[in-house]
Amino acid sequence: MGAAETSMVYSYLGPAGTFTEDALRGFDPDHAGEWRPVASIVQAIDDVAQGRSDRAVIPIENSVEGGVTATLDALATMTGVRIRGERTVPITFHLLARPGVRLADVRRIATHPMSYPQCRGWLAEHVPGHQFVPAPSNAAAAASALHDETIDAAIAGERVLDHYGLEVLARGIGDNANAVTRFVLLGPDHGVPEPTGADKTSLIVELPVDEAGALLRLLEQFSTRGINMTRIESRPIGDELGRYRFSIDLEGHVCDARVAEALRGVYRFSPRVVFLGSYPRANGRAASVQPGQGNADHEAARRWVEALLR
Amino acid sequence: MGAAETSMVYSYLGPAGTFTEDALRGFDPDHAGEWRPVASIVQAIDDVAQGRSDRAVIPIENSVEGGVTATLDALATMTGVRIRGERTVPITFHLLARPGVRLADVRRIATHPMSYPQCRGWLAEHVPGHQFVPAPSNAAAAASALHDETIDAAIAGERVLDHYGLEVLARGIGDNANAVTRFVLLGPDHGVPEPTGADKTSLIVELPVDEAGALLRLLEQFSTRGINMTRIESRPIGDELGRYRFSIDLEGHVCDARVAEALRGVYRFSPRVVFLGSYPRANGRAASVQPGQGNADHEAARRWVEALLR
Amino acid sequence: MGAAETSMVYSYLGPAGTFTEDALRGFDPDHAGEWRPVASIVQAIDDVAQGRSDRAVIPIENSVEGGVTATLDALATMTGVRIRGERTVPITFHLLARPGVRLADVRRIATHPMSYPQCRGWLAEHVPGHQFVPAPSNAAAAASALHDETIDAAIAGERVLDHYGLEVLARGIGDNANAVTRFVLLGPDHGVPEPTGADKTSLIVELPVDEAGALLRLLEQFSTRGINMTRIESRPIGDELGRYRFSIDLEGHVCDARVAEALRGVYRFSPRVVFLGSYPRANGRAASVQPGQGNADHEAARRWVEALLR
Amino acid sequence: MGAAETSMVYSYLGPAGTFTEDALRGFDPDHAGEWRPVASIVQAIDDVAQGRSDRAVIPIENSVEGGVTATLDALATMTGVRIRGERTVPITFHLLARPGVRLADVRRIATHPMSYPQCRGWLAEHVPGHQFVPAPSNAAAAASALHDETIDAAIAGERVLDHYGLEVLARGIGDNANAVTRFVLLGPDHGVPEPTGADKTSLIVELPVDEAGALLRLLEQFSTRGINMTRIESRPIGDELGRYRFSIDLEGHVCDARVAEALRGVYRFSPRVVFLGSYPRANGRAASVQPGQGNADHEAARRWVEALLR
Repeated sequence: MGAAETSMVYSYLGPAGTFTEDALRGFDPDHAGEWRPVASIVQAIDDVAQGRSDRAVIPIENSVEGGVTATLDALATMTGVRIRGERTVPITFHLLARPGVRLADVRRIATHPMSYPQCRGWLAEHVPGHQFVPAPSNAAAAASALHDETIDAAIAGERVLDHYGLEVLARGIGDNANAVTRFVLLGPDHGVPEPTGADKTSLIVELPVDEAGALLRLLEQFSTRGINMTRIESRPIGDELGRYRFSIDLEGHVCDARVAEALRGVYRFSPRVVFLGSYPRANGRAASVQPGQGNADHEAARRWVEALLR
Repeated sequence: MGAAETSMVYSYLGPAGTFTEDALRGFDPDHAGEWRPVASIVQAIDDVAQGRSDRAVIPIENSVEGGVTATLDALATMTGVRIRGERTVPITFHLLARPGVRLADVRRIATHPMSYPQCRGWLAEHVPGHQFVPAPSNAAAAASALHDETIDAAIAGERVLDHYGLEVLARGIGDNANAVTRFVLLGPDHGVPEPTGADKTSLIVELPVDEAGALLRLLEQFSTRGINMTRIESRPIGDELGRYRFSIDLEGHVCDARVAEALRGVYRFSPRVVFLGSYPRANGRAASVQPGQGNADHEAARRWVEALLR
Repeated sequence: MGAAETSMVYSYLGPAGTFTEDALRGFDPDHAGEWRPVASIVQAIDDVAQGRSDRAVIPIENSVEGGVTATLDALATMTGVRIRGERTVPITFHLLARPGVRLADVRRIATHPMSYPQCRGWLAEHVPGHQFVPAPSNAAAAASALHDETIDAAIAGERVLDHYGLEVLARGIGDNANAVTRFVLLGPDHGVPEPTGADKTSLIVELPVDEAGALLRLLEQFSTRGINMTRIESRPIGDELGRYRFSIDLEGHVCDARVAEALRGVYRFSPRVVFLGSYPRANGRAASVQPGQGNADHEAARRWVEALLR
Repeated sequence: MGAAETSMVYSYLGPAGTFTEDALRGFDPDHAGEWRPVASIVQAIDDVAQGRSDRAVIPIENSVEGGVTATLDALATMTGVRIRGERTVPITFHLLARPGVRLADVRRIATHPMSYPQCRGWLAEHVPGHQFVPAPSNAAAAASALHDETIDAAIAGERVLDHYGLEVLARGIGDNANAVTRFVLLGPDHGVPEPTGADKTSLIVELPVDEAGALLRLLEQFSTRGINMTRIESRPIGDELGRYRFSIDLEGHVCDARVAEALRGVYRFSPRVVFLGSYPRANGRAASVQPGQGNADHEAARRWVEALLR
């Protein structure tokens, strides 16, 4: 799936020069396809759902700031797409400015609201009196630092330097040197990549209303089948306080018998479940399989029960 | 299954006149088959396993004295049979003696070791100085009360009066007026009676060795699928202290999808599981089915996952 | 606690005219205290932690957009404060502009990034070609709509009309008519409000590393003590992908014996747990108490075990 | 507790020459106390409860035949005693007869109903046509083999040879060479032996009526506190089919904080719980203590919660 296919069209959360472009480069290293920057996550998803693009690349989670809520909510409510792959991109922030601006001059700093808190510590120390100006993207922040006199500097990644004639006032100003963002590659909602042995399955699950312990019972659907959960995030359903849906990543592939059985269990339990896809893990780590939970074990158990009925 | 079939041969734990004969009468009310009393539970089972009889009737559980260990252990270790039905028989004990013996004369009382403790309260009050003489069956106790001068009285049920010329010294001497024994009807180990909606499934399950919480994990196999357990009894495996197998009755039939799935789960989890049969419950009570656990729900879930893969 | 106390100093996430001010009005209806708008959630918390203010009011959760991540992360990492109360405020958005601007003229719309997605549906229908300009707060957006020629309109609540001479182009443009935001009242980290019978307890809990099923085991700490969880939200710890802490609200008060026991269990289980406070629920709903989980039951159980040791 | 105390009076399930006497020898190796054989388990318990004896020794479990139901039921219903120790005794059976009787002559064999099934395999091979005559104890069987002409042989342990002039027809005829019986030492129901680090705690627990999953919830009381269960056995309560109480052994001592907390939880959950004692394990194996479940961890957690309230 990482391999590019000729003539593929990729929508990605633009503009050019963002970390999302870095992620797309990972999915299509030879730039064999057409790369189409779009203005919003919803539009990227819709491009694939409507067939205007073959694939979309959007951020889903940052190691410091957490889930990208726009992505989680769009995937929970839009239809027609499925995750086909994932990729993590190291996040390195620089402080950039027009030629001539010195660090001591910087007062108003533009950047994306998800980037700003990741540099808060460095800024507090080195630009104590600064003012944060939110921007729709780091690339837009860079553009404003170049063209808008009221903006003194922008925070953005290395890649914007390819597009904007800015200078680096300070490199690597993120508070966490290991920060990464995870991106997903979306395709249309038919077909599932072949199992590789190191796969993930992503779901959106709503809980039955007014049932104490419903989350516990949901997790038991996985634990009883010996399935590890690698991520769980709650998002409001939106109709009232206290109603949540859960965005969940599991180890394993829907073609693994234990995962298929757990999905069936969740489907019966939950008033609404969305299958977001099974796809190779970015870290290549094989799913841990408990004793008795391999496909051969499931097949043997199936045959045993079948034989009882003869 | 309760209906008798012509020319059926039934082995039952004899001799004639025991409560087991009462149970057999329930399974074959018109006495259409041939009734063959045998000397032991093992022999009754073996008759069916070897094809010498079509059916066997043996006690499995008494409401006061608990599981019939000989039955539980034989079903755990012998092969070739399956439970096809069950029946509960009210247990009423009388104190019986040769004509001429008065209650005041009674010293030595013969009865089966499982019957004796059920009358302990009455005996303590009315025959305070008595001595208990264990007998292989209540009918054998009756025979000894008739023929053996050292035995003054026997404890047995109504039915022995058909066979032995004893007199009733006291009626209904059991301490618990509602005592019942549950009997099972065994057949060969092929085929399963049709589901009736009010069925039970019986299993013998060994736990993985040296795994703390293994019993908890076994029970989760049932609770995750919304299955009620109506009985669980531990029996030593016999090789060393602390190793147990569990004899379990579940609500539902192996043809119910939730039960089949739980059986597959138990099969994968347990080093050894014996399916003892699915059969109509004696009390005719329908299995409780949790929301999402009906056959249609399972079928819908199966189709949903299948559709994901297209 | 909702009652204002004379001479109290309240820090709140400002500027004046935001929904946070509405919440503060709920906590101090007579404006008996001094209200001090501050520029950030971190500053509001710090004011209380350092003793510059007695109380702080900050948003913690929106029914549509979910947890306020800045609040959740600050409460997880800062010390010296505790939640003393909560309040929900209905969120109603208006589209506002300088006198003279008509709806048909609107292109560039300023608002807070958490407000914008809540009006996305209305905007798509009524201002299809608009452009979103993120602002640090809705009040700041209103200010820019008044003073910055490049901004045509702002999205904000009723309250900003007290402060800015804007006109209402459209009322109630939020996509969800029932949207609310929940705010918390913070005080210093000593003392806990008296139990009222309708209380909540808030925690931040980190899970043991690399333990499959750790979340399930955490939830069992509550379910075993019969405690309902009303909210659970995951937030990245920040050091690497896949490490989360959980922000949890429970029914009940730390003075309830079942809650105290669960807290002790969580403390032993978790590498790091932060007690954020026990306080009256905004909705006044009494905690559900399972049989055997009342304080008298706990006291009776304590006395029983104590008596065993005599 | 294994150490004998001068002038102690021990009741034990007699007569002399049984395996129970072997167990008593383990508890009082120098025969410093007075040993009083009694006719029944109930009497042995009652002797201690009424103060006629200081201690009682009775069998509780056999590795082949399982729980001694008379003991389990008596401990569940009688009051005034507590287990203070346990001991396992290897069970070796011999076939014994009057001088002059040869193996080929043996037809009728007397023994206790719990001993007979443990020799079934050997008997089937070597005395195929024999008849089993149940006896109240193995010693009584030996007596009858000596004095009753209708009995050809007895099955009993080595020790009866001290009391009866019988000859050994065959040694070690038990089917399981490793068979053991576990015996308990009872004392009055006040005080608990000091914790040794290798202790057990025994309980009788009734489940709430008509609650599906009640057993699962009971086991969670232990698993949540990290407590291993070494034995669980169901016994009918006796009032109707399907109502059970559970006889449970746990690792640990009531003075261990995790065990005390679990006991309190069980007390609140169960309609009836009987504490049978905490006492040193026969095998001397230390209780496994999960991380966070030691006494120091419990004490730290207690102090943490207490500090929250200051």
